[in-house]
Amino acid sequence: MDGDPAEASRSGRPRREKTRLAILDATADILLSNGLSETTISAIAARAQASKVTIYRWWPSLGAVAIDAYFHRFLPTTVTPDSGNTVTDLSTQVLHLTAALRGRPGEIMAELLGQAQFAPDLHEALRERWFGPRWAASTAVLQRGVERGEIRSDVSVSIVLDEIFGPVYLRLMTRQQPLSDELVGEMVRNVLRGVAN
Amino acid sequence: MDGDPAEASRSGRPRREKTRLAILDATADILLSNGLSETTISAIAARAQASKVTIYRWWPSLGAVAIDAYFHRFLPTTVTPDSGNTVTDLSTQVLHLTAALRGRPGEIMAELLGQAQFAPDLHEALRERWFGPRWAASTAVLQRGVERGEIRSDVSVSIVLDEIFGPVYLRLMTRQQPLSDELVGEMVRNVLRGVAN
Repeated sequence: MDGDPAEASRSGRPRREKTRLAILDATADILLSNGLSETTISAIAARAQASKVTIYRWWPSLGAVAIDAYFHRFLPTTVTPDSGNTVTDLSTQVLHLTAALRGRPGEIMAELLGQAQFAPDLHEALRERWFGPRWAASTAVLQRGVERGEIRSDVSVSIVLDEIFGPVYLRLMTRQQPLSDELVGEMVRNVLRGVAN
Repeated sequence: MDGDPAEASRSGRPRREKTRLAILDATADILLSNGLSETTISAIAARAQASKVTIYRWWPSLGAVAIDAYFHRFLPTTVTPDSGNTVTDLSTQVLHLTAALRGRPGEIMAELLGQAQFAPDLHEALRERWFGPRWAASTAVLQRGVERGEIRSDVSVSIVLDEIFGPVYLRLMTRQQPLSDELVGEMVRNVLRGVAN
């Protein structure tokens, strides 16, 4: 979904792409400065100089455009390292996430997850656009670990994913402990030692 | 904070205690049937036949009374087992929590945690009245495990707590996977194996 100007030109739709990026930038600006509660389709349309109809043509809901804008501005890529070592690869993924979630972007993600408890469309957008790709990237790392014999083959990968990412999102929501690199290092080592062959 | 009628009589304040319980019951009823977004001090006062002033005399905020009502109705006690085995004791605690968080009570806790991202008073109430006592009870279990030599003494207990409870709250918020007994069993075994001596 990320904007690639070269691709937009090739497809012959540069103006449409420019509008799409303007909408994502406007949404990210409003999220950053005013928070999720003031991020509305009207406010986005006004700031992006686009019509509400245009926004709804490309995104099914406010939740969908908010998640895409968040992704566009704060976390453009999901990293998929393959060093041959599961502790290294998983640590890389989690450190990439926690670095991105420090400060204001982390507060906005906490607001998105919080608001999702009251807004099914946002919940669905988070699931599809945020968690889905990240779970897939980390599942791939864990499965390579199983194939190499580092991780026991009878382990439930989805439970290991929860053990790794649960602490990150719990700290994000409760703000009682920092998302430090030390946390990530010790946590990934602990969790993988617990499922090692 | 839970109502003990015998204690209330001894302290000579039975009517006050009755009003306090009526307020907690009214709050829990509204939370259960209408959700957090319709739980207001006015609605609680009307249902409990108490004045708003009375409510604010005993609770500093809506967040505080909502958390106390939740605790009063759904999870009256924090369990503190001491079987001599850390896997058993921690599993007992987490199974107690996940059993209580299934269904409607779990949805309300997800709403409370979600709304806390926008309401500092609710955030503080959750920290003090919900997470605090639970973290303390599980810290005690883990520290006994360290003293018995089951758990490595160089382990950060707060990180282990996050590894155990992070998956529970992540599943609660994302609703992508159930809070099953199988999850709890495998997760607690994995995590404690990862920090075993």
